[in-house]
Amino acid sequence: MKKIKLKVPATVANLVCGFDILGMAIYEPYDEMELALTDSPEIIIRHEDPFGLPEDPLKNVAGIVLLKIQEHLQLSTGFEVTIRKHIKPGSGLGSSAASAAGAAFGANILLENILSKNEMIHFAMFGEELASGVRHADNIAPCIYGGITLVKSTVPLDIIPLNTPDLFVTAVHPQVEVKTSDSRQILKKTVSLKSAVEQWGNIAGLVAGIQKNDIPLIGRSLNDVIIEPIRSILIPQFDEIKSKSLQSGALGGGISGSGPSIFMLSEKKETAEKIARLMKSIYDNIDIESYVYISKINPKGIELIENK
Amino acid sequence: MKKIKLKVPATVANLVCGFDILGMAIYEPYDEMELALTDSPEIIIRHEDPFGLPEDPLKNVAGIVLLKIQEHLQLSTGFEVTIRKHIKPGSGLGSSAASAAGAAFGANILLENILSKNEMIHFAMFGEELASGVRHADNIAPCIYGGITLVKSTVPLDIIPLNTPDLFVTAVHPQVEVKTSDSRQILKKTVSLKSAVEQWGNIAGLVAGIQKNDIPLIGRSLNDVIIEPIRSILIPQFDEIKSKSLQSGALGGGISGSGPSIFMLSEKKETAEKIARLMKSIYDNIDIESYVYISKINPKGIELIENK
Repeated sequence: MKKIKLKVPATVANLVCGFDILGMAIYEPYDEMELALTDSPEIIIRHEDPFGLPEDPLKNVAGIVLLKIQEHLQLSTGFEVTIRKHIKPGSGLGSSAASAAGAAFGANILLENILSKNEMIHFAMFGEELASGVRHADNIAPCIYGGITLVKSTVPLDIIPLNTPDLFVTAVHPQVEVKTSDSRQILKKTVSLKSAVEQWGNIAGLVAGIQKNDIPLIGRSLNDVIIEPIRSILIPQFDEIKSKSLQSGALGGGISGSGPSIFMLSEKKETAEKIARLMKSIYDNIDIESYVYISKINPKGIELIENK
Repeated sequence: MKKIKLKVPATVANLVCGFDILGMAIYEPYDEMELALTDSPEIIIRHEDPFGLPEDPLKNVAGIVLLKIQEHLQLSTGFEVTIRKHIKPGSGLGSSAASAAGAAFGANILLENILSKNEMIHFAMFGEELASGVRHADNIAPCIYGGITLVKSTVPLDIIPLNTPDLFVTAVHPQVEVKTSDSRQILKKTVSLKSAVEQWGNIAGLVAGIQKNDIPLIGRSLNDVIIEPIRSILIPQFDEIKSKSLQSGALGGGISGSGPSIFMLSEKKETAEKIARLMKSIYDNIDIESYVYISKINPKGIELIENK
């Protein structure tokens, strides 16, 4: 029985000004997933982690993706999946996307590359729908493509891989709960045309900066006048972390996905480490436990680490 | 007395989805401007064209730019300017921007390159303010930089030159009047977050397409869900011209600036010519006179053609 093991990375959606369209894969944290094809058509999910996620395939993010693939390809075989999740659910670091993308990516390898990248994303989006009610691809796309991706549209699915700037990412996950659904509901349904124009200047600048490898341009494009002012209210010490990170030499950064994690980009490893210590101490000071991760932008995305 | 002659090109602002931030220089039509330094501090403007534009420097777009430069640099000399305008005022092809940018560009040559590109744009923006009440740079920037430019912000001025795709531009100017001020007033002050997200997906796609030289991506990013549906109402036969141009092989296109001109991008010269004939015949059919221009995207912008 063919069995594979994957390393499935965390992802940072939105990238400050690119709400719902941009995302980036990082190296840390990551989930481990083992997948095997089975003779019987059942889908068996096991979670070897402390998060108490449902293992019923209909209620499990990886499970629903595999069910959809099985149904679409009319497979007579099933899947057995073991997940060791290290990306905490609700962290804003693409935990559900990792399960969903890992399931689609793994199934594709087991089925001898029957699916295109965009087909994998299509099936993985059912996992996001189960997790958050929204069939979005801004975490799944960078997980599967690696690097930074633009989701130009989801219907039809149009994913544009962008360049990978040589930058460090510091991410902090404070142990407070922010539900994606709450964090979406507090957004205003309309925005002023003036703010929208400012925002698309920043998005255009960010994409141009990434493609031209113009690091200062990336830095000064990381501004969000629409979403961050509202969502950041739900994240303790957001303003302090952001302003002190910038003072410490960060290029820019903001909320990771819908939070509560916060990420910052830096050119140098020492800056990224300095920011990591700063983030930790700010949360220590107010007795909020936090996890801090430092990594480069991850150009590969999901990695196959065992295939036997 | 030093005297120079410039060829100052028309420009297409907005590029469909990039309202107020993107602009592109073309070759046709263009204005001719002659500038000379004078011993006396007066600014003399002469229009050798049929448009009846004011020649009082305080009321003339080129004049106000030169006055601002003279004042800022505390010059004891003046300027003598002759303008042969071929870009019709009110065409949506950057007529006022040509006068303003040409004045700043010409003054800078006469003053031996005392100004940076962004300083030229800064002064030229006073001309746009005189013409339309808004100190915008989306036509001036491509006129001075050439090619396609992103105005990431105007305060502070942040201009990003983008790549120049090897494409043909067909532009039609129907002889109907659409005032920039009217065309701005009918816009809604707010937009739905959903449309804004769709729009910034298109802008990000367009910038990525330009930088990656991905021509199909440029084509499918040329969609405007916010401005075009409103402004196009002011332009006769807009929908017919757009849909038939696309059927004839155009990559995409839309309103040039605030209209009434319409532009289309094509990969091949034959397509651009076919679209030109189509545009002309649609306006001929309803007895609206029109001018049609075909050119490549112009990577140079303003050209110095005589220097003596």
